Amino acid sequence: MELSKMSRAELEAFKNEAQAKYDEYKARGLSLNMARGKPSAEQLDLTEGLLTTVVKSSDCIADDGTDCRNYGVVDGLPEAKALFAPMLNVTNDQLILGGSSSLNMMYDTIAKFLLFGVNKDAKPWKDQGRLKWLCPCPGYDRHFLVTESFGFEMINIPMNADGPDMDMIEKLAAQDESIKGVWCVPMYGNPTGITFSDEVVKRFANMKTKADDFRIFWDNAYCVHHLSDDHDVLLDLLAECEKAGNPDRAIEFASTSKISYAGAGVAMMASSKANIDYIKSLLTVQTIGPDKINQLRHVKFFKNFEGLKEHMKKHQALLAPRFAAVLDGLDKEIAPYGIGSWTKPNGGYFISFNAMNGCAKRIVELCKEAGVVLTGAGATFPYKKDPDDSNIRIAPSYPPVDELKLAVEIFTTAVKLASAEKLLNS
Amino acid sequence: MELSKMSRAELEAFKNEAQAKYDEYKARGLSLNMARGKPSAEQLDLTEGLLTTVVKSSDCIADDGTDCRNYGVVDGLPEAKALFAPMLNVTNDQLILGGSSSLNMMYDTIAKFLLFGVNKDAKPWKDQGRLKWLCPCPGYDRHFLVTESFGFEMINIPMNADGPDMDMIEKLAAQDESIKGVWCVPMYGNPTGITFSDEVVKRFANMKTKADDFRIFWDNAYCVHHLSDDHDVLLDLLAECEKAGNPDRAIEFASTSKISYAGAGVAMMASSKANIDYIKSLLTVQTIGPDKINQLRHVKFFKNFEGLKEHMKKHQALLAPRFAAVLDGLDKEIAPYGIGSWTKPNGGYFISFNAMNGCAKRIVELCKEAGVVLTGAGATFPYKKDPDDSNIRIAPSYPPVDELKLAVEIFTTAVKLASAEKLLNS
Repeated sequence: MELSKMSRAELEAFKNEAQAKYDEYKARGLSLNMARGKPSAEQLDLTEGLLTTVVKSSDCIADDGTDCRNYGVVDGLPEAKALFAPMLNVTNDQLILGGSSSLNMMYDTIAKFLLFGVNKDAKPWKDQGRLKWLCPCPGYDRHFLVTESFGFEMINIPMNADGPDMDMIEKLAAQDESIKGVWCVPMYGNPTGITFSDEVVKRFANMKTKADDFRIFWDNAYCVHHLSDDHDVLLDLLAECEKAGNPDRAIEFASTSKISYAGAGVAMMASSKANIDYIKSLLTVQTIGPDKINQLRHVKFFKNFEGLKEHMKKHQALLAPRFAAVLDGLDKEIAPYGIGSWTKPNGGYFISFNAMNGCAKRIVELCKEAGVVLTGAGATFPYKKDPDDSNIRIAPSYPPVDELKLAVEIFTTAVKLASAEKLLNS
Repeated sequence: MELSKMSRAELEAFKNEAQAKYDEYKARGLSLNMARGKPSAEQLDLTEGLLTTVVKSSDCIADDGTDCRNYGVVDGLPEAKALFAPMLNVTNDQLILGGSSSLNMMYDTIAKFLLFGVNKDAKPWKDQGRLKWLCPCPGYDRHFLVTESFGFEMINIPMNADGPDMDMIEKLAAQDESIKGVWCVPMYGNPTGITFSDEVVKRFANMKTKADDFRIFWDNAYCVHHLSDDHDVLLDLLAECEKAGNPDRAIEFASTSKISYAGAGVAMMASSKANIDYIKSLLTVQTIGPDKINQLRHVKFFKNFEGLKEHMKKHQALLAPRFAAVLDGLDKEIAPYGIGSWTKPNGGYFISFNAMNGCAKRIVELCKEAGVVLTGAGATFPYKKDPDDSNIRIAPSYPPVDELKLAVEIFTTAVKLASAEKLLNS
């Protein structure tokens, strides 16, 4: 029976039952974590062989004779580009390989646009007064933190099942020159898990923008991170932008943080050749080059993009049961009571849970007190402010399955308790 | 006999002899390089064992249990900090370990000061109008390129035998609030090879600056890079700043680019705890963390700072004969004619050669045509403009000794030829 249809007495009984169960869990003094989208140790073990691909000095020589132990090659090794270019469907000259953090590349790109403008003829963003940024949400907390730290006024854009509300984005971008960009995690989004539809991608590529220097930050972090063989397919935004006559509009980011190592992978960015040439011209002043030995490790381990895709099936085998454990728990414990909705992603690292309005903070608090750490309520919105206090990001990847199942039991118990409290107090 | 004392006929004969020798070299179609301060392959081979220190998943666990394959630890592994902190004479909480490039850290630090100010209460540099930067020169071309790209007006400061002209620096910094910083390579400077005297360091620490947010960028790139056992000692600027009541004035940078690998080492910055805490607060938005596996490789290979210092003796053994080869050539071929002066560094990667005024470009051009690549004339000055057209940076580290000797023969021949041309035409 749905909670909203229960009598006060039925609700009281429901609440008491949830409370009793909650107290039992709490008494166990557990320490569980569903907070961050970290790969598990088992996943990291999958790439153990990467560490032995480059162990001798002679292993450090690239195909063109470059000694990867020495300076140079600011935009990444050609053979490493050849490995990753098909993943983003670009040519080598549309790609820059960086250090290990794609977040760092996004941050640096915005910093460069602030200080120097989006191209050599553009006015630096810093000289254009107070600027705004479009933030489809729920979204990735670290994206929002970047634009907040740079002083952008962030505008919430609701997320639909096929991507952000494009009517709203088109309307705002067309009329306001101070809107300079938009954050997107277009495939298996963080935290929604959804993939943008072809129509949404095309509208991004074709929409009119009042600002010539509007840029789409397309964080394709989960582009090969499927949870089932029958996976989502994302339309290629860079190609659509090119077709639409807006070739320089989008910059795509990715990394191997969830392919090889989350602390020691290879990050990358792709865009039009013009954008990449411009960024390279600035990058040449910033650094002599990234860690090419680590790029070489990736080439030697994965061999080519086919090898990388095969490798991702091993991640899938470890992640799919974890997602299933969470979804099973939610289906069994929450669905019957109508006190929450959630996504069932075909890939990525997150499940987005929407509690009854006004319950998210309470649920996260209850979980914390019972030893289950969740991403902070509100974190998936700009300024950490969820207007409905509803969204909670569930990250199933890190804990072992048995721990995860226990964490989900506690989570669903907390959802029941918080929902009943809310209804009784309203 | 000094060239300046020769008769025209003697000069003509000297020039013809140099020209004949030069033509012989040119006819050989050589390809030699004394341009960049790159370690040689032999030097890079010294660290081969570093690649085998972390080859299994279990090798990736840090002392505190941190799995270095996963996210986190934004300011660097504690045990890696413990390895490098003694090198800069700081505590772990005064140190940030980054990726592989210290140039990148310097660039990012200036970018942060531009966008956010030097501390949380300071006005961002970008909001303070046109700014200036002090540039002791000859200096490091990539430093000058960074401040040029950010739009600072760069002011040339002459270099003396014990460091930059402190009278001039003190005078300028005391009177002009738009002067925000100074570049220094205080030990075995690039390209002079000199080490700043205690007095110079103390004057830097104690001088009055009109700008509260004036910062010394102290690139201690060659702090353990001695060429003889009887080596230079640099006074600790951070400690002197602390003593002088200016604890936040200086930021020190270093890396293992010339200790382990020039493309895949560990970069670092050190300063007061207040500065480091502030930079960390910004860094936390920029990245989830650097490559900790590579930091761990360094810890396991060098063990501790004593181990690192021992290792540097192996570099010394490879570099000292190269420096000797250049200095011998200059002593024999140039000194008798009074057509150049040069430094005899006790460490670092460069010899700074001052030709007769107006000859540097011609010498570099002559060398290039005979197959010897040198750092471009002027590169050691802001805007690549050497007012005297005199300074040439010689980088002896990269070529094998026999190639280096040949390159020096060609170089000294070019100096002779250019000097004679100059005197005959003046």
